[in-house]
Amino acid sequence: MIKAGIIGATGYTGAELVRILSRHPEVELVALTSRSYAGEGMAGVYPSLTGYTNLTCENLTPDEVMDRAEVIFIALPHGHAVPVATRARERGIKVIDLGADWRFRNAGTYEEWYKIQHGNHELAARAVYGLPEIHREAIRSAGLVANPGCYPTSAILGLAPLLKGGYIDPATIIIDAKSGVSGAGREARVTSLFVECNESINPYGVTSHRHTPEIEQELSALAGKEVKVTFTPHLLPISRGILSTMYATLVRPASTEELRGVYEEFYAGEPFVHLLPPGQWPHTRWVYGSNNCHLNLAVDTRTGRVVVASAIDNLTKGASGQAVQNLNLMCGFPETMALEVPGLCP
Amino acid sequence: MIKAGIIGATGYTGAELVRILSRHPEVELVALTSRSYAGEGMAGVYPSLTGYTNLTCENLTPDEVMDRAEVIFIALPHGHAVPVATRARERGIKVIDLGADWRFRNAGTYEEWYKIQHGNHELAARAVYGLPEIHREAIRSAGLVANPGCYPTSAILGLAPLLKGGYIDPATIIIDAKSGVSGAGREARVTSLFVECNESINPYGVTSHRHTPEIEQELSALAGKEVKVTFTPHLLPISRGILSTMYATLVRPASTEELRGVYEEFYAGEPFVHLLPPGQWPHTRWVYGSNNCHLNLAVDTRTGRVVVASAIDNLTKGASGQAVQNLNLMCGFPETMALEVPGLCP
Amino acid sequence: MIKAGIIGATGYTGAELVRILSRHPEVELVALTSRSYAGEGMAGVYPSLTGYTNLTCENLTPDEVMDRAEVIFIALPHGHAVPVATRARERGIKVIDLGADWRFRNAGTYEEWYKIQHGNHELAARAVYGLPEIHREAIRSAGLVANPGCYPTSAILGLAPLLKGGYIDPATIIIDAKSGVSGAGREARVTSLFVECNESINPYGVTSHRHTPEIEQELSALAGKEVKVTFTPHLLPISRGILSTMYATLVRPASTEELRGVYEEFYAGEPFVHLLPPGQWPHTRWVYGSNNCHLNLAVDTRTGRVVVASAIDNLTKGASGQAVQNLNLMCGFPETMALEVPGLCP
Amino acid sequence: MIKAGIIGATGYTGAELVRILSRHPEVELVALTSRSYAGEGMAGVYPSLTGYTNLTCENLTPDEVMDRAEVIFIALPHGHAVPVATRARERGIKVIDLGADWRFRNAGTYEEWYKIQHGNHELAARAVYGLPEIHREAIRSAGLVANPGCYPTSAILGLAPLLKGGYIDPATIIIDAKSGVSGAGREARVTSLFVECNESINPYGVTSHRHTPEIEQELSALAGKEVKVTFTPHLLPISRGILSTMYATLVRPASTEELRGVYEEFYAGEPFVHLLPPGQWPHTRWVYGSNNCHLNLAVDTRTGRVVVASAIDNLTKGASGQAVQNLNLMCGFPETMALEVPGLCP
Repeated sequence: MIKAGIIGATGYTGAELVRILSRHPEVELVALTSRSYAGEGMAGVYPSLTGYTNLTCENLTPDEVMDRAEVIFIALPHGHAVPVATRARERGIKVIDLGADWRFRNAGTYEEWYKIQHGNHELAARAVYGLPEIHREAIRSAGLVANPGCYPTSAILGLAPLLKGGYIDPATIIIDAKSGVSGAGREARVTSLFVECNESINPYGVTSHRHTPEIEQELSALAGKEVKVTFTPHLLPISRGILSTMYATLVRPASTEELRGVYEEFYAGEPFVHLLPPGQWPHTRWVYGSNNCHLNLAVDTRTGRVVVASAIDNLTKGASGQAVQNLNLMCGFPETMALEVPGLCP
Repeated sequence: MIKAGIIGATGYTGAELVRILSRHPEVELVALTSRSYAGEGMAGVYPSLTGYTNLTCENLTPDEVMDRAEVIFIALPHGHAVPVATRARERGIKVIDLGADWRFRNAGTYEEWYKIQHGNHELAARAVYGLPEIHREAIRSAGLVANPGCYPTSAILGLAPLLKGGYIDPATIIIDAKSGVSGAGREARVTSLFVECNESINPYGVTSHRHTPEIEQELSALAGKEVKVTFTPHLLPISRGILSTMYATLVRPASTEELRGVYEEFYAGEPFVHLLPPGQWPHTRWVYGSNNCHLNLAVDTRTGRVVVASAIDNLTKGASGQAVQNLNLMCGFPETMALEVPGLCP
Repeated sequence: MIKAGIIGATGYTGAELVRILSRHPEVELVALTSRSYAGEGMAGVYPSLTGYTNLTCENLTPDEVMDRAEVIFIALPHGHAVPVATRARERGIKVIDLGADWRFRNAGTYEEWYKIQHGNHELAARAVYGLPEIHREAIRSAGLVANPGCYPTSAILGLAPLLKGGYIDPATIIIDAKSGVSGAGREARVTSLFVECNESINPYGVTSHRHTPEIEQELSALAGKEVKVTFTPHLLPISRGILSTMYATLVRPASTEELRGVYEEFYAGEPFVHLLPPGQWPHTRWVYGSNNCHLNLAVDTRTGRVVVASAIDNLTKGASGQAVQNLNLMCGFPETMALEVPGLCP
Repeated sequence: MIKAGIIGATGYTGAELVRILSRHPEVELVALTSRSYAGEGMAGVYPSLTGYTNLTCENLTPDEVMDRAEVIFIALPHGHAVPVATRARERGIKVIDLGADWRFRNAGTYEEWYKIQHGNHELAARAVYGLPEIHREAIRSAGLVANPGCYPTSAILGLAPLLKGGYIDPATIIIDAKSGVSGAGREARVTSLFVECNESINPYGVTSHRHTPEIEQELSALAGKEVKVTFTPHLLPISRGILSTMYATLVRPASTEELRGVYEEFYAGEPFVHLLPPGQWPHTRWVYGSNNCHLNLAVDTRTGRVVVASAIDNLTKGASGQAVQNLNLMCGFPETMALEVPGLCP
């Protein structure tokens, strides 16, 4: 039994962590921090948790959390996790950060895209990018894991086998991604209102979204050379779910069947990544509330391209579920512990 | 470990049973029957189950299912469960029927509202109405449990404490209920199409819905005299969830606080029924995918009425979750086994 | 051609006014006020209006608007319309207020429910409640029209024929109403976020909603005696639409057919109120974006009650469409001008 | 005043035609045909039309319709419009076909993708593709107009200026399109059920959708050489709306500003096509229920690509609105007649 704290517990990813950890047999939650809801019961903020947690939200300092916890999850706006994680590592406490602060080995890239200084380049260089299907062994021994962004998780899992195997031209990659509104968080903003999102879809952050360099860092490592992508996120009237549809030109002709074999081999034994049968394209609701990633692909023989689709739940595999998966690896628990449920469907 | 079969596995309640039972440590699913999908993998019909079941849908006779299973769930259109359950009881096999065939102690009431003959009045009189919060002890020793309808579950749980305690005039009960579309099943009908349901709400079955006599049977037993209600169901653009808003005139003045005490006592120790704090009215998404029922109430002192709201997930507590709760009771497993998860929220 | 201004143009009711008036052949919009968006084009705030208006939002004083306009619409939070309308009437300018400030003949009732002082009881007593189907002649000659609330519009239209004709016991009225999220306005609030509303329904304001006394004022006038109702609003995951389901006990037995005749007579010749055929219950999407009100009813012979359902679009007949209908009456234009479109369905 | 008939009036595009034409001052609807609903009032099938049409659906032969009408709209499944339009042209009756039968100048392409024989290659070669922004003059004098598909309308309007001007490499075009469920029609199919579509997005018809050759025919004509595209449609939980996000490689560096100028010039004077201001990306709800197309674009300087987004309402500009626009052109009415309304937003 390990003691865990969540710093920033009342956002959507924080609530999702509590939901998942409430049934984790090896984790005891000992601290939930919140400024806005300090003094309120977590089950008052998220009544779905009524009967599942008696914890009260507290306005604790990071050190106060570390006094109680052996591992901390950080779910704060970017910029805020740098000092917290730095301090935690000094105290030997394990950290899983759900934000962007530690996702870049080269903190200069972070500074360029996020327009703020990063206070600890040295530690950034040693943090581990927490995508278990790519970095499992490094995660097992990591003290600081940078939990991947939701879009990058779906995109990297979708493209990794092709890039690793050299099947596609890295200069031709286009990622058209569609996300549910929970990705925008629980902040009260006009653009996240029901009436503004319902019955609509729109692109945003075109050519400039901050998940672009994160995707490129990982794809470049897989390809063994620098990769630049065109990435377009869209906002979709669903609560949870990301679908990424990806396009790339094959470097030599290949059949759908041949490429399916590449994926099957690459993801053999993976508990959460599933290549669906031929012709069965991912629906985000099939992974709703689960830690699964569903994939499929087809070769467009008319144009020499491959089309890949990848579906995850942005709050689970795209955030808090993956964070628990990383926790399990870091603590030596079974990797799927507390994450065994199928998607909530229908 | 008990062997279980599902007759009619590919409707929404069947799929929900498979979802829940896939993580039940004491149940092994041994048969899934389907006419439409015979020969297909259950995970092909519901790809959310990919990796959670290897079972194939089969067009089996009931006796073939009973050759394999010690307990059967029946998820068939009404009328079809009478011969199946009759045969199962002859063979000593436990039965949980998710349809209406066994919900009436007086099968004549069933015949009047469902407009078909019931072939086994004698067994109907002995079947147990599977609402554990009301009939727990009878369920434990039952061989045939009639799993309640979704609307009745929400309505009866909402009104039981008031009727049992004699706080309201049974002649004044009005139940205004709102259901998600999954309640209409997976049959391809124009009225269940996305475009017909989206951005809309409508009443249906006004003054004539078949759940009316089921509600009345149970409320009458609680009140100790015949109760007739006005019940109006509505169709709502959500997949899962029922909210019942209920109105009744108090027989004598009472405060909200006093009536809260009545509910707290009535449901003390219940694992799935939660009276929310004062002023926090149930939202169906708070119980999404869970077996919970959330309640709240207020006295309208201006008119002498009490208003009660009750929220459940129609597929879980309103159908398959409650069926597993009944299974647990019938088999001596912990009542909450495989049902411990909070609502999937946000 | 009349010159009109909108004070508070960038909320949802303001935008709906602009949408409707953009095709009104007798109205020229000459001023749109907004604090938040002063200096921005209205079509920048609501890009759906691109090509339909070149007006810029301005932070004007009420008097500056009145310098340009012959009639003003006020779409401000309650409390703010009292001084504006008072001044406008001094200047002889016609006013249609979409808020609550002028809806009560007895401003004391307003003060009791809205918890603020009303600065002009005398003018309040002379304002006209702008429900044309009930007060058409008074509206024609009014200088100040209080546009009804959305819930009251649906409820009063649904119950008026029964109360006027003395068919129901006024002490037994229950109104269970369901509204789309646009009724909460465009203010950035957590409770109006997509993720908080989607896949959910909940009651709110139980026993205390401020539309209660407004409904009671009008129903009392129709009944010829004081009426108190139990009114429960619900929030629904649709953008537009209100469905009110209403219950009352008949004072003597009556058939559905007989009561249909009462409605047909009461609403004979009404352009916007439609009693649907027997058994066809209103769906809010059938009136989506239109100024129509769809009604139906049935007698529950088992309990001696009548059930009435009434559907409107809360932003159109429930707010801005009705405001334009009132404008048409006040200015002598054809009552349906600019409001002739059917619901946007499918 | 022209007499018009609709063959296949009770599908979604038929209902949308009736909705629009109900306020067309120069069109009198004289016949609505339907097999499923013969004998029922159109307002019974679509109650939103209550008060707007008294027409009854009839099971008429095409010749019976032509006996009454001077122009006919055909809204039938593909294959069925060939004999109807052939006969109409023999009788000199104007035809607007909303299906695929007449969209291909080379009927062989149709036969290849639709897998059926086309009975009138000669007439197909002379039919006019009814996209007014591209073929306005030909439409004016046409007897048979093939109304474009919904996806092609959005894609072609989005790419036409770039291809016509030679700014992009035609071999690099990728079209990632997202459609509301009404595009699937009103047929009762499991895949169109609310529960199957809600809270989900999925690709379908990957590499094989029948709108591909239609897009290619028109893009090839614009480019002056053969164009092949990768086209991926997606199903989205909205009722109406298509967003197409398009990608292509620039043949030489160009700025967003420069390309904006190209679009402004190409669409100068167009009543329905609007290039939104820089940074304001199209939302489908902004064109909801209108005949508008909203566009925007940006150059991705990092990769040398241009990204274009195009939003329409699939039932209006993508089907019935465009059909009325074509009717207006064919009959010499003002092109925007009955189509002047802005999007229904919020």
